[in-house]
Amino acid sequence: MRVRIQDIAKEAKVSKSTVSLILNNKADHIPIETREKIKSISRKMGYRPNKIAKSLSNNSTNTIGVIVPDIRNVFFADLAKGVEEEAFLNEYNVFLCNSDDSYEKEISYIKALSDWGVDGIILDCAASNKEKVKESFDRLYEENIPTVLVDRNVGEKRFNTVMFNNIEGAYQAVKYLIDLGHTKIGCVTGALWLDCDEERLCGYKKALAEKEIPYDESLVIEGGYKYEEGGLAGVELVKRGVTAIFCYDDIMAYGLIYELKKIGIKVPRDLSVVGFDSINLNHVPEDERITTIIQPTNEMGQSAFNQLHQIMKDSGTQTTVKNITISGALRLGNSTKKRPKD
Amino acid sequence: MRVRIQDIAKEAKVSKSTVSLILNNKADHIPIETREKIKSISRKMGYRPNKIAKSLSNNSTNTIGVIVPDIRNVFFADLAKGVEEEAFLNEYNVFLCNSDDSYEKEISYIKALSDWGVDGIILDCAASNKEKVKESFDRLYEENIPTVLVDRNVGEKRFNTVMFNNIEGAYQAVKYLIDLGHTKIGCVTGALWLDCDEERLCGYKKALAEKEIPYDESLVIEGGYKYEEGGLAGVELVKRGVTAIFCYDDIMAYGLIYELKKIGIKVPRDLSVVGFDSINLNHVPEDERITTIIQPTNEMGQSAFNQLHQIMKDSGTQTTVKNITISGALRLGNSTKKRPKD
Repeated sequence: MRVRIQDIAKEAKVSKSTVSLILNNKADHIPIETREKIKSISRKMGYRPNKIAKSLSNNSTNTIGVIVPDIRNVFFADLAKGVEEEAFLNEYNVFLCNSDDSYEKEISYIKALSDWGVDGIILDCAASNKEKVKESFDRLYEENIPTVLVDRNVGEKRFNTVMFNNIEGAYQAVKYLIDLGHTKIGCVTGALWLDCDEERLCGYKKALAEKEIPYDESLVIEGGYKYEEGGLAGVELVKRGVTAIFCYDDIMAYGLIYELKKIGIKVPRDLSVVGFDSINLNHVPEDERITTIIQPTNEMGQSAFNQLHQIMKDSGTQTTVKNITISGALRLGNSTKKRPKD
Repeated sequence: MRVRIQDIAKEAKVSKSTVSLILNNKADHIPIETREKIKSISRKMGYRPNKIAKSLSNNSTNTIGVIVPDIRNVFFADLAKGVEEEAFLNEYNVFLCNSDDSYEKEISYIKALSDWGVDGIILDCAASNKEKVKESFDRLYEENIPTVLVDRNVGEKRFNTVMFNNIEGAYQAVKYLIDLGHTKIGCVTGALWLDCDEERLCGYKKALAEKEIPYDESLVIEGGYKYEEGGLAGVELVKRGVTAIFCYDDIMAYGLIYELKKIGIKVPRDLSVVGFDSINLNHVPEDERITTIIQPTNEMGQSAFNQLHQIMKDSGTQTTVKNITISGALRLGNSTKKRPKD
């Protein structure tokens, strides 16, 4: 069993505080003979300094916290994996926290990580409540913990960020559909108040504007990144006469394709669909994968760690805010085809 | 910004150690006037006790660690989610660690969690090296941290465990194939030295023996829970004349189905396949899902937390070892059918 301060104290017949002060080199007022005696006993007993105690004195724990909204979603798991790999190379441990898209859990984890004295936090924020997300940001700022926001943001300017180039991604997706001859293109969104969602809408509009296709609000349906929402929105958009649909994530795209299949509408025969994320679906055969925008999740995670590492090395004295945007690319799959001539 | 011990020390013009001893009620040797003055200043400055410091005195942090082999695999993510939900209800924070099936990372996380003084650890061990796994177990035992093993074990008897009823699960899978008329049934395994893998093989053999079908070693191919391994093993087993295959996980089953499709063998038309896990594949349409064994991952996670909670409440003085086995059920999908009469 691990040797504790109290074991040494008992052995040496002194108080725990005395042992603690001596082992932390804060005992100048204690006679040198006592100090050497205690250190010698500690060595003999195989005492290993406790990182908790150590962190109180040198303010570093070589541990960071990563908070993600949904660990069961491959996208976030991949992102966390990217952070973890890079952290491990740099001898940092990563404590991963799952906020379950709940701001209560998110704030509880921020408090816990702060109380524990992690060296830094990477946050991919919960999307359940716009106002409450800001409380999380304020808390991180007040606690003065080195922080990097990744993937999601809500207009926050105080922290370094690593974000995907959402405007460009959505633009590429919609441009590709237009190039295939589609002009009536539906859009299934997430929670529109997240920056990434607003940006994707910009990209959608940009691609339309470029080809002078008027923007039609009725072709944009708010989803929320869930499988079922894709299905519901898809059925509705088909009623409204679209020949192609851009979905804000792959999960909704798969839901949409499945739901439409049930009512006899086949993708890509009758409808073209482009997703977003390119989640690593090992179990979906290559020839059944959809056309989508690749988000380099692993790279985003690595980049988030490297930014955080830099701030931590600078002892948290962050003077300028750095924002990194990572671009993706279109990956062709079997969910898109040329629009037949009318 | 958070008020620190040093801020109070500066304000009160005393040493950090003095403030620390007073706030931790370990300063009987310091005059009561000084003690009250320091406490009053702390209150005025809005000092909040640091959990790290607190954990040094009361030995509880209301935090547990969970170590899983691969956070990107839905099975482990679901398991972690089960722990996390139950922990949250009981006001515990969960730090999740991803060992990436590497024993080096696993032992590093065990050390880190121990150093940090988590109240307990739930371990789903890495399967990269049989001997090294035992080092992890020894370390946990020596550190005397309340521990529960979940999902995987390697003959370890010192800890409480929550395991799936693998014998019964595999038995049900193979019995179902036999009931459909299959007698030449292939088997694609994981790493055979894990207890769960040995048990699945027992279940496979038991179902065969019950119907007096001789066990044929050449129909059992070692895989390792990866998509590609399923494909390779499937092609080989078909050459060896099987009409059905039992896979140790769904991922390998999907890989197998896809690889065989490429060479013109259709499931279930030409071959029946049963998987294991019932991973929550939202994006696989209901009618394309395979027949599999449901492992109640969420329940296993909850149960692991509850066991750990009990040990932690008993202050780690665990006298008897408790082993919980959770049973699953067969879920029918579209990968199995009756063997045609010869």
